Amino acid sequence: MTTVSHTVQDLSTRLREAIRDIPDYPKPGILFKDITTALRQPQLFADIVEALYQQAKEANIQYVAGIESRGFILGSPLAYRLGAGFIPIRKRGKLPGQTAQYEYQLEYGTDCVEIHVDAIEPGARVLLVDDLLATGGTAAAASHLIGQVGGRLVGALFMVDLAFLNGRSQLPPLDLLEALVTYTD
Amino acid sequence: MTTVSHTVQDLSTRLREAIRDIPDYPKPGILFKDITTALRQPQLFADIVEALYQQAKEANIQYVAGIESRGFILGSPLAYRLGAGFIPIRKRGKLPGQTAQYEYQLEYGTDCVEIHVDAIEPGARVLLVDDLLATGGTAAAASHLIGQVGGRLVGALFMVDLAFLNGRSQLPPLDLLEALVTYTD
Repeated sequence: MTTVSHTVQDLSTRLREAIRDIPDYPKPGILFKDITTALRQPQLFADIVEALYQQAKEANIQYVAGIESRGFILGSPLAYRLGAGFIPIRKRGKLPGQTAQYEYQLEYGTDCVEIHVDAIEPGARVLLVDDLLATGGTAAAASHLIGQVGGRLVGALFMVDLAFLNGRSQLPPLDLLEALVTYTD
Repeated sequence: MTTVSHTVQDLSTRLREAIRDIPDYPKPGILFKDITTALRQPQLFADIVEALYQQAKEANIQYVAGIESRGFILGSPLAYRLGAGFIPIRKRGKLPGQTAQYEYQLEYGTDCVEIHVDAIEPGARVLLVDDLLATGGTAAAASHLIGQVGGRLVGALFMVDLAFLNGRSQLPPLDLLEALVTYTD
């Protein structure tokens, strides 16, 4: 592992520099935040995981639930760093075992996320992780799912918060709700 | 992080016990190896990452390339553990930047994987990671992609090798080509 030598404030600045804006992706009018340009930098990637760990280390996390599929890239090393188990939350039809499902509204139509019904023991402490909080629809659906299968959602961590879309308002009240970099416009 | 207290041989046995067989998924006649029942166990998950690390630690890896999306769950903590960068290899249309693409044959039809063209410096040492080696089509396509964008593929690691499907024969010769558990029938 690489040593960590920067503060969280530094990290936010470094992430802003590393994250790449892609105009009109996935559709016209959307300015997409491409985080792959940050993940590919060894020291920055290590510092991202370490900063998430610092946020979560006192929360006694038993499971990290990562949202398909960029949430896997951040949630999995965080689970490893915390000594927790990793649980995938996936789009419809991607999990092979018996699942609980939660359907939610998109701008046009609906989407659906799933979790294995036996993924979490009743009352176990779960941390939700995704790369980016936008309108909060997927994160809110994931938080419902965790409760549905008996887990206790104790926090949610994101690499990026597009705060102007107010995704936080969709989530339940959480003591631990943080992002490493926040865009206000 | 959790301490590691088992040999690789032990690990193979523990993985066989933890991996769940799902009949007729994703289609009739396929016996699917569900690894999520292993990933959710904190000590086992830590030992999986540590065992992959032990395989790769002498190979001077600069980038770990994980194949969407279960390959992200293993490749990302391994990149973190190695102090390497992480690079996603994704299905068509999922990467926002300019990509190289490789199309490959399936039993019926074709599939396609992509990588960002600027993900890897020329000659950089890359380790390919996926959860499972089956017929090897996707892994072979990913290995082509890594070369296409200038990377040097120095190894490939899998959690599971379905050796009876002979996926290894599809990959280029590699000094480092290992799986943590191998099924021979």
